[in-house]
Amino acid sequence: MHQETQAGIAPPRQRRVGLWLIGACGGVGTTVALGLAAWRKGLGTPTGLVTALPMFGPSSAAGKATCGAPLLDDLESFVLGGHEIRQTHWMQTAREMQQRANVFSTELLQACREELESWSANVRGGTLLNVGEAISRLASLPNLPSAETPRQAIARIQHDLLCFREAHRLEQVVVINVASTEPPFRLTEVHQDWARLAASLESQEGASLLPASSIYALATIELGWPYVNFTPSLGASFPAACQRAEECGAAIAGQDGKTGETLLKTVLAPMFALRNLRVLSWVGHNIFGNRDGWVLDDPRNKLSKIRTKDQVLAHILGYKPQTHVSIEYIESLDDWKTAWDHIHFEGFLGVKMVLQFIWQGCDSILAAPLVIDLARLALLAQRQGERGILRHLACFFKNPLGVQEHDFFRQFAMLEHYVAQVRSQIPA
Amino acid sequence: MHQETQAGIAPPRQRRVGLWLIGACGGVGTTVALGLAAWRKGLGTPTGLVTALPMFGPSSAAGKATCGAPLLDDLESFVLGGHEIRQTHWMQTAREMQQRANVFSTELLQACREELESWSANVRGGTLLNVGEAISRLASLPNLPSAETPRQAIARIQHDLLCFREAHRLEQVVVINVASTEPPFRLTEVHQDWARLAASLESQEGASLLPASSIYALATIELGWPYVNFTPSLGASFPAACQRAEECGAAIAGQDGKTGETLLKTVLAPMFALRNLRVLSWVGHNIFGNRDGWVLDDPRNKLSKIRTKDQVLAHILGYKPQTHVSIEYIESLDDWKTAWDHIHFEGFLGVKMVLQFIWQGCDSILAAPLVIDLARLALLAQRQGERGILRHLACFFKNPLGVQEHDFFRQFAMLEHYVAQVRSQIPA
Amino acid sequence: MHQETQAGIAPPRQRRVGLWLIGACGGVGTTVALGLAAWRKGLGTPTGLVTALPMFGPSSAAGKATCGAPLLDDLESFVLGGHEIRQTHWMQTAREMQQRANVFSTELLQACREELESWSANVRGGTLLNVGEAISRLASLPNLPSAETPRQAIARIQHDLLCFREAHRLEQVVVINVASTEPPFRLTEVHQDWARLAASLESQEGASLLPASSIYALATIELGWPYVNFTPSLGASFPAACQRAEECGAAIAGQDGKTGETLLKTVLAPMFALRNLRVLSWVGHNIFGNRDGWVLDDPRNKLSKIRTKDQVLAHILGYKPQTHVSIEYIESLDDWKTAWDHIHFEGFLGVKMVLQFIWQGCDSILAAPLVIDLARLALLAQRQGERGILRHLACFFKNPLGVQEHDFFRQFAMLEHYVAQVRSQIPA
Amino acid sequence: MHQETQAGIAPPRQRRVGLWLIGACGGVGTTVALGLAAWRKGLGTPTGLVTALPMFGPSSAAGKATCGAPLLDDLESFVLGGHEIRQTHWMQTAREMQQRANVFSTELLQACREELESWSANVRGGTLLNVGEAISRLASLPNLPSAETPRQAIARIQHDLLCFREAHRLEQVVVINVASTEPPFRLTEVHQDWARLAASLESQEGASLLPASSIYALATIELGWPYVNFTPSLGASFPAACQRAEECGAAIAGQDGKTGETLLKTVLAPMFALRNLRVLSWVGHNIFGNRDGWVLDDPRNKLSKIRTKDQVLAHILGYKPQTHVSIEYIESLDDWKTAWDHIHFEGFLGVKMVLQFIWQGCDSILAAPLVIDLARLALLAQRQGERGILRHLACFFKNPLGVQEHDFFRQFAMLEHYVAQVRSQIPA
Repeated sequence: MHQETQAGIAPPRQRRVGLWLIGACGGVGTTVALGLAAWRKGLGTPTGLVTALPMFGPSSAAGKATCGAPLLDDLESFVLGGHEIRQTHWMQTAREMQQRANVFSTELLQACREELESWSANVRGGTLLNVGEAISRLASLPNLPSAETPRQAIARIQHDLLCFREAHRLEQVVVINVASTEPPFRLTEVHQDWARLAASLESQEGASLLPASSIYALATIELGWPYVNFTPSLGASFPAACQRAEECGAAIAGQDGKTGETLLKTVLAPMFALRNLRVLSWVGHNIFGNRDGWVLDDPRNKLSKIRTKDQVLAHILGYKPQTHVSIEYIESLDDWKTAWDHIHFEGFLGVKMVLQFIWQGCDSILAAPLVIDLARLALLAQRQGERGILRHLACFFKNPLGVQEHDFFRQFAMLEHYVAQVRSQIPA
Repeated sequence: MHQETQAGIAPPRQRRVGLWLIGACGGVGTTVALGLAAWRKGLGTPTGLVTALPMFGPSSAAGKATCGAPLLDDLESFVLGGHEIRQTHWMQTAREMQQRANVFSTELLQACREELESWSANVRGGTLLNVGEAISRLASLPNLPSAETPRQAIARIQHDLLCFREAHRLEQVVVINVASTEPPFRLTEVHQDWARLAASLESQEGASLLPASSIYALATIELGWPYVNFTPSLGASFPAACQRAEECGAAIAGQDGKTGETLLKTVLAPMFALRNLRVLSWVGHNIFGNRDGWVLDDPRNKLSKIRTKDQVLAHILGYKPQTHVSIEYIESLDDWKTAWDHIHFEGFLGVKMVLQFIWQGCDSILAAPLVIDLARLALLAQRQGERGILRHLACFFKNPLGVQEHDFFRQFAMLEHYVAQVRSQIPA
Repeated sequence: MHQETQAGIAPPRQRRVGLWLIGACGGVGTTVALGLAAWRKGLGTPTGLVTALPMFGPSSAAGKATCGAPLLDDLESFVLGGHEIRQTHWMQTAREMQQRANVFSTELLQACREELESWSANVRGGTLLNVGEAISRLASLPNLPSAETPRQAIARIQHDLLCFREAHRLEQVVVINVASTEPPFRLTEVHQDWARLAASLESQEGASLLPASSIYALATIELGWPYVNFTPSLGASFPAACQRAEECGAAIAGQDGKTGETLLKTVLAPMFALRNLRVLSWVGHNIFGNRDGWVLDDPRNKLSKIRTKDQVLAHILGYKPQTHVSIEYIESLDDWKTAWDHIHFEGFLGVKMVLQFIWQGCDSILAAPLVIDLARLALLAQRQGERGILRHLACFFKNPLGVQEHDFFRQFAMLEHYVAQVRSQIPA
Repeated sequence: MHQETQAGIAPPRQRRVGLWLIGACGGVGTTVALGLAAWRKGLGTPTGLVTALPMFGPSSAAGKATCGAPLLDDLESFVLGGHEIRQTHWMQTAREMQQRANVFSTELLQACREELESWSANVRGGTLLNVGEAISRLASLPNLPSAETPRQAIARIQHDLLCFREAHRLEQVVVINVASTEPPFRLTEVHQDWARLAASLESQEGASLLPASSIYALATIELGWPYVNFTPSLGASFPAACQRAEECGAAIAGQDGKTGETLLKTVLAPMFALRNLRVLSWVGHNIFGNRDGWVLDDPRNKLSKIRTKDQVLAHILGYKPQTHVSIEYIESLDDWKTAWDHIHFEGFLGVKMVLQFIWQGCDSILAAPLVIDLARLALLAQRQGERGILRHLACFFKNPLGVQEHDFFRQFAMLEHYVAQVRSQIPA
């Protein structure tokens, strides 16, 4: 796949790597594209990028190593592509976001036009297999295949990925799912074992066995490329897929990026635990109005999201307080996710007290740098020869694959430990 | 001082230890007294007590060891006493709090009457030396000495402490300052060196050299007993006092208990730091109406408090955002401290976002269990033969003595590390 | 019914009037009973009583007229009774509220014991006819009739009411529904016309035609007594009942007391309207945990409540912004209703801005004085010879019968106008 | 001054009127200019304009009468000019606001460039007489006169105003003060009587007698033109100025536009009053970071603002609860004024409850349409022959001149009454 592994983990100069986004032209995908384009134009700042923290090296933000071996790829090294089901392109979706949520400046969009148009040419039509009604209604691309077997869909997607790598002479490619949330998918016996599942995927009857998110995941995994699921959709989060990742040497991570309200839960709950204050109830009410919110307005899709948001507290507290999580689509807010959390807790002598917080964040702006972080870290893991679940990435996810730890700070310590370990393996 | 050190750290059954409170009948002192009395009556719960967490042993909440050696004193072991400048007693102040802030039930007060009355007999008149105008106005006890030299005041206080220990046959006594906040005290050369300071304390001219909080601290330190400063007042927070503590084998800790808004700052700021989100401004507005608030309504006293509240962010973030901290005395709120914090931060591509929180806590209820925790941990430290600053208690304080770390979780890790170390020294 | 009408509207001294509560021992009913008992003991204050405002006369708070004719009955004049389906009494429910929500003092409960016990003897078993599953599950009184026709239930309730009036020699009696919310009731042709409905009520087949709230309403109306519906249940809110009220000379009012979040909506929405600021979306999230909340946790019952809460904005604004109202049962909050409202609005040049409010009110405490106000005003209306809908009481209700006006201040002006008119009819 | 009064109040077609802004290029002035320019380009909407409400006529928003006589001037009729002390112009200040607060789009600025540049040519250098240190520090225009007597300053300003009217052939001109807040000005005997004051203004010794805001006010008043003070500065708010306005036939109005937090106070306080809920304390904490905020960061200037904000409650409630108002300059917020208000109130049986609100408004965007409203209404008043204080404009001001009523809805009723009266005088 790449020659660097022989030469050690250091990415050589003038490397080119690919970031392939599932749901490329959604809010998160568009912001990733704009952010990487802005960086190339010298208009970006490292704010919001975890991989720009000092712990990743003196030059990690810009990725420009002046001495020794930088851990991570330069932001300039990335070439973008992806799958999409809507008839659109990045310049258009960036302009729409600007008009609706007023987060980017007109000047920024103009400056990034060249990259956005060039990368848009890399976008290919995705699959609608079992995405659910809400997402299906969004599809506007003509000629999206409708009668593929899962195996055919996988093959088609792999073809797109391989063409992308070849066309741009990329050293590595990472695939990240940033598409809208699918409804929960019921797992059965067949999802427990790769051999059984593999056989079923060949037939038309197997068409109902996997949702689109898992098709993309398997296509990537079987190429041995790293795959990250930034959404609550199924993706690679079932035993047969994890098994296949191990077999194919693919690194996988997920699921559901921890960007706002849930991040705060996993920051505040440890405080209550360590101060021995008893949480009586924790109510979280989320409102927003972007396309992801529109999809979540379907109760089936919403259920996936609420599940990952609502489980973290019991893990951290060690008991289950009454919880309530709601998500409502409020069109006027667009990308400005507002969350009100009301935490009722008991202190000494049984006295009840209250903490409330109001979070007003721009969803795509919070998510995009984490996607870039995950891309850099997944590519590093691949160079390191890691396979299977990347547990050290737990701090990025609401529902970290393979990890029971939800305390944000303990999760972050896992990442710090990993980085120290990797560094210790680099020859001085 | 106590025989246990020879026999190991385990507190034997039927031990009796003393907790001496400076500002005994204030809100925090009253709640400590009520809480310990309630525990004796079987009406308490361990909620709010850090030392009731599992890390302190299977039986640490009740302190009733069934096997091996419990680290900490039983809550039933404590006898209370203290210094006070107002003409009052615990039953009366508890009733006043009940009427004004409605936090205790009438039934609880009745059940605890016996202990509160008995312990009130241990309260002695304190000193008004340099407490400032606001606190002086609170003094209502007749016959408070007015023309003592610092050394005379220290001797008188030590006499009170020794009588307390003798009268109740106490194995150990810890002194904790929970009095109202004094104005900032200007330190000079004489406070840098114990020998110089000691000489000055003998004369009437030396009367302006130390505030009351430091008089109590030195009285305790010179007995070799543990001293904890739960307030922003000077106490033992200057070089000559720390030096004296080392010399006398006294363990000291402080300063200013971290109970509410500042606790949240030291929990949330690390999140912004680790996600590389740039805090642009952090505004904290605190309102409350208890006696401490009345004292803080004097701008001189308020200054002490704001200083300890306003320094934590820069330490954690590594840069200084614009900050504003205000504290206002709003009588109707009484003990219900309400804090509104507005955090303006910048994310990816320069987008500005907002987190706000509203904290509605009962100040005394939050503080009292931490005072009990500190009493238990300071007594443990003394038994362990520790002297000077107890750095492992940083997580309890807004301005931890001798520690630059303000991140709550890193501070807590210091405590965990300490406990593990102590346990490793206990013979199985 | 009463002799005063001849002598003019002035209630003579030593009058005794009855207040009959449907759902007597619920939170609101209990607080009404406790409040009136406290008043008798000299422990009450007029705070929260609209009828204690100066506009009702110099002595209206205490009701003790020193000159001229007071408009309203003294608070001491009231004798309480009611219908209930649970096996309980006011002293017990008051104590439960004290223990769970901590709003009353133990001392107050003790002082009011005599009245509460005496009035509890007036409580009778109610009807479960079509109350829905959630309310049925609350029923614990033995021997509640289960196979009555509507007409039999009406007759039984009327018997209870008449016995109450007789036993206490009451000049007037007003009936107010403060029971938990029933599910929405589907109205048909038969509810449009009294003659048709009346015929159906006689048969067992007619048992499904009316919910309990309407049974109580008709029982009261046919006695010619005033009836007030403080809940979203059907009560007298359908054409046949209004027609019957006119025929029988009964004054009726309703529906659903406007106590908290909706009150604020009808106060704030006029501001946006008069400043020509365009409301884009208005989200209201309510959480509380008392028995009413438990009943509303049933989606059928909740629907009734949300309907009355969600209609006011369009009436005031003149257009329909996106709205969302949710109500969740959070047990730990008990009677402390907390509402978070997020109002997104557009100003000059299309700029979007936000107002948020957080309301932390004690539901029963807010409702009870309004119930007393309505009792006094309904009794006044009856003495004035008014029949049918009392439109001037619109400011008390979320869904005012017979009135399209939802602006709180315009509604209040209707009450002021009414009072001025009544006063002008009183001989000097 | 203008011929229309003879011909009746109707503004003839193709009228041109002038709006002269003191502090022309500040945030409010810039937004007024941009808003009127946008309207001319067909890019405006009537949102936020009170004078666009239906009560001002079917065509009042656009001002394009199709039948009968429109009450108010078309928005297209306005020509802008003003006084300024900084070296800048509207296109520049609009661009600065766009960059700092992100409220206008780049496209809007481009579309309005022609008008902004043309109107900027009408801006003249103002006076620094007694503006205080904070405002003086802002002055960057060269050649601002420094040694004028008040009378010389008045004459110079009048010359600017008359040239403006002549150059643009304006039918009427209204002067509105939207400059930064001056420190409070101490009034003495000489301010009580015009004759005494007039004499003093001629001498250099009189230079300390009036602040700049009053110089502009008198210059306008003595021309008989309408003057509106949208700020808390002194302006015409003293007896001698009011007397002079009567003498010269000038209509005056003020003071301090009611745009955000105070508007809410005057909306919510009436609710507490009419529900007889007792406000115990009302705390308001305001943060923002625009140039007005920078000036208010000087404690002297802040005092003027807090005074007008803090008086409204006692007037509405009829008693004085504990209040606290603070205003802090937080640079990162720029024009986004955020206010947190905490209202502690008592209900039935003495139970304490809380309402909190958080207002996130863009100051200039809220103020600008009200300035345009006041311009239209002041011009109408002049055409109507009104002189002295315009009391019917109370709803626009925090501290309405000549009016004790602070209840927003009662104030608005005064405006409605006025409009009805004016309409009744128009010949059909």
